[in-house]
Parts: sequence; C-alpha cells; structure tokens
Amino acid sequence: MPLELLSSQKSFGGWHHRYRHHSATLQCDMVFAVYLPPQAREGAKLPVLYWLSGLTCTDENFMQKAGAQRLAAELGLVLIAPDTSPRGAGVPGDPDGAWDFGHGAGFYLNASEEPWAAHYRMHDYVVHELPALVEASFPVSDRRGISGHSMGGHGALVCALRNPGRYRSLSAFAPIANPSNCPWGEKAFSRYLGADRDSWRQWDACALLATASKRLPILVDQGDADSFMAMQLKPEMLRATAAAVGHPLTLRLQPGYDHSYYFIASFIDDHLRHHAQALNA
Amino acid sequence: MPLELLSSQKSFGGWHHRYRHHSATLQCDMVFAVYLPPQAREGAKLPVLYWLSGLTCTDENFMQKAGAQRLAAELGLVLIAPDTSPRGAGVPGDPDGAWDFGHGAGFYLNASEEPWAAHYRMHDYVVHELPALVEASFPVSDRRGISGHSMGGHGALVCALRNPGRYRSLSAFAPIANPSNCPWGEKAFSRYLGADRDSWRQWDACALLATASKRLPILVDQGDADSFMAMQLKPEMLRATAAAVGHPLTLRLQPGYDHSYYFIASFIDDHLRHHAQALNA
Repeated sequence: MPLELLSSQKSFGGWHHRYRHHSATLQCDMVFAVYLPPQAREGAKLPVLYWLSGLTCTDENFMQKAGAQRLAAELGLVLIAPDTSPRGAGVPGDPDGAWDFGHGAGFYLNASEEPWAAHYRMHDYVVHELPALVEASFPVSDRRGISGHSMGGHGALVCALRNPGRYRSLSAFAPIANPSNCPWGEKAFSRYLGADRDSWRQWDACALLATASKRLPILVDQGDADSFMAMQLKPEMLRATAAAVGHPLTLRLQPGYDHSYYFIASFIDDHLRHHAQALNA
Repeated sequence: MPLELLSSQKSFGGWHHRYRHHSATLQCDMVFAVYLPPQAREGAKLPVLYWLSGLTCTDENFMQKAGAQRLAAELGLVLIAPDTSPRGAGVPGDPDGAWDFGHGAGFYLNASEEPWAAHYRMHDYVVHELPALVEASFPVSDRRGISGHSMGGHGALVCALRNPGRYRSLSAFAPIANPSNCPWGEKAFSRYLGADRDSWRQWDACALLATASKRLPILVDQGDADSFMAMQLKPEMLRATAAAVGHPLTLRLQPGYDHSYYFIASFIDDHLRHHAQALNA
C-alpha cells in the first residue's frame, strides 16, 4: 500500500486526511493532506486544487488556518496540501539551521547542486509524482488548479508557467514574484542551482511569464501592510512583466493586510471561486 | 494605560488584536484577543461574544482555527478570546507538569484551596474583570453572549447559569457537561475546590441547570466520534437534566465529528447566528 493513513477528521461534511508515503522523486518519506468534500462519496471525479505553503510550513498550516474547507465543500473541490520540502534525518538542511533554506524551504524547484540535488526535487514531486498518486487514490479528475502563499505562491506560478496545459487555473497569495532578485530567492537559488544566474530564470515567475506560450489567467492577492512586500515579494515586477507581454493578471493590493493566514483566510473564498470557475468550465 | 497592544492583523475587513494587561483578579499579567468587525469603525456599540477555550489552549487557538471572523464580520459581532488560566512564573501549575490541571486548565472557577486560591479565579475574571475592561476599551455594548469548547464549554455553561441575566445567549461545543463525575473534572475540582463534593455543585453545569431560575436557551454541538465523549463530556447528563426541568436545550449529536477545531469550524456559523439572533433581538 503506497499510502499510510495518519489521521482522519470530518470537516464540513467531508474528510480531512493526512497520509505518509515514500517519494521516489525526493528519496524520502513525505506527508501530505487531502480535503475530500462531501461530493467525493457520490462517484463523481472531482477537480483538485493544489496548495503550496510558504517557508517553515507543513501540510497543516493551510488546512488548520485558511478556512478553505467551508467553500470547497460547497463547490465540490478537492484540496491537496503537500509539505514544503523533503525532510528527515537523511535529507540535508541549512548548514546554519536557518528557516529560509533546506527543511521547510524547498522552493518548489529541482536542485542541480550537491548536496541538494538528490532530494530537493519539489517541482517534480508537486507537478508529477504527487498528482499521479492523488489521481490513482482518490475520486478525482485530471482537472488541476494550483495556488499557494509566499514561497508557495512562487511555486504555484512557476509550476503552472513551466507546464502549460497541466493546470487549468492559477492563483497566488503574496508570492515571491521575482526570486532571482530578492534575498530569500538569491540565498536559495545560489545553493540549489549554483552561481550561474542564467539557470535561475527557469525558476523565476517573472522570467517565465515574459516568455510564456499560453495565457492562463492569474489571480494574485497581496496585502499592502505585508512587511516582506518591498524586499522579498516584489509584486510590481509581476505586474510590469504581465503588462509588458499582455498576460492576463488580476493583482489586487489589499489595504491593511499583512503576510499571515488572517490575510489568506480573508480572501481564500475569492480564490476558490476563481479556481472552481475554470476547473468546472 | 491598562492595555498593552501586542499585535494587530486585518481580518475580513476588521481587526484581530492581542492585548496584555494586569489582572487584579488573577494577580498576574494576562493576554486576550479581540476581533473587531468592520462595523466597529462606525460608532455603533456592538454586541460581544466571549469564547472560552479548552485545555492547553490560549487566546490563539480559536482565532486561528475556528474560522469565526468571516461571519462575525458580516453579523457585526465582536469576539473576545481570553486565556484558559492564570499564567506566569509566580502562578503555581500542576505539580506533575500535567496538561489537564494548572496552567492552561483553570476550569473557569474560583478556587478555594491553597495554593490555587490566590490566582485561580477565572470565573470572576471572565464574568466581571474582562468584560469591564472590554466595555471600557472598545465600541461594544453590554449585550453579551458566551460560548466555548470542552473545558471552555463547561465554562460558558457555568458562567451563564451562575449569573442569570448577564448573558443574552449561550452555546457550547463538546462541553464537559458534568465535571463532578468525570476524571478531568474530579482532578481539577478536588484540587481547586477541595474534597467536599457539595461545593462542586456550584461549578457543575448539570447541577446548576437543575435549579436554574431563568430559561436561557442553550445550543450544544457534540461530535459522536469524539473520543472524550463517553468518559469526560457526558452530553447525555446535560440532556437528561434539561429534559427533567424543562430547560430549552438544542443538543445536536454530529455524526462522524471529533473533538478538534475541524469540528468547531464546521458548525461555528450556526453558533454565531444563534448568538447574533439573541444579541440583536
């Protein structure tokens, strides 16, 4: 049995399950959470929204704090929340024990540099291995949407932009929009990908957007009281790039909101509706 | 200044604030959270719902996990979440370091026994000192409702039943309904109140309900997959007592739900509407 059930909790008429499995991509055991809405019992193949969390998070933050289950139960959306990096005793982390690199900070890319390359392949895990497992294990279709927060917002943008046609809907909360040009991204990319900045472009939403072949509409919410906005997130770079190439982007600056799950919870319903509309079209 | 602001976060158009203050009742510093809905800016005096959390919790669990702000913002309800006990270096806790007594486990009563009597007066804090502070500090009226979970469900029932007329609405999630007759309650009451079981009756919802002079309607939700139900919570004792004296009780056994905040989040909207209806009547 590839999936080990860790816990089950009823939620808004559906079920929140946590599973452990061995990831061949990441060469370690991984935990992820799934929310199955009540419609999952009725034999239909439901669409799936993948949620990528931010630095330091696990599968639990989104499921506990975003308040997404209420409307997902109404819309018939399955929610999947993976972890944010490979983990475990055999997986190297930040040599200094920092929280912005290594465990909890996989940046949803495929590392090319040692000692990271063997385990840090979160892009392939999120885009290929996990959906294959999900689609074989639950009553879901291959209609996929993707969203996320901060590092996970970066991940959602990059996963969708790198894989045109694989996702039918895309959104992000306070994404690290231009990681090649901010301290979090520069630290992670220089270690995972090496010193050649040209190689970073394939993992940078702004660089990918500039050459995107498909025009998948993007919804982004960003709190204007988010203390990370100016130095780390740089939504204006995303706005400028989208405008330059004519990519459909709805970027909403939300006055007074910060970087927390209180911000996410306040606007998650808009994102769920954005995804459901595209996934059910 | 009696209130020290610790943090502020915008949430559903309103604000989640955390404050520290010195409690004269508890003889220690206390932290509580307030959710002010958007209507708090408009000069009206809003009704207040007090939420009492369960064992091990602080003010944060409810605000982070219950998903109450969305509908509170719509209904114009202020939410107040106090801590679950006095705390700090000068406050004695469980001598064995257990999680079901002492810090995080004040049981919303006034202790009579040493060494607890000086600090463990959560009933007077929740019913008198905190509302006086809240009503002097925020744009709220004296229309009060009270609810809570587990130990906090016990607290809500006891606070309302001991103080007829002080609360206009009452509900609970999975309350410890008959603490005189369950292990959690017997441990706490025998230490806080002493060996005389007669003195326990004034802190036991079933005993109080049997002699209640007012008929404040009670809404209770209880998951039927809650692993604490049979031994610790005993909803059937509450149902039997209410039926015997003709007290209006809506007790809903929710099939498949457990004791967690996933259960609370699933039904919090029903409770908020129950309170708003009474508070705005």
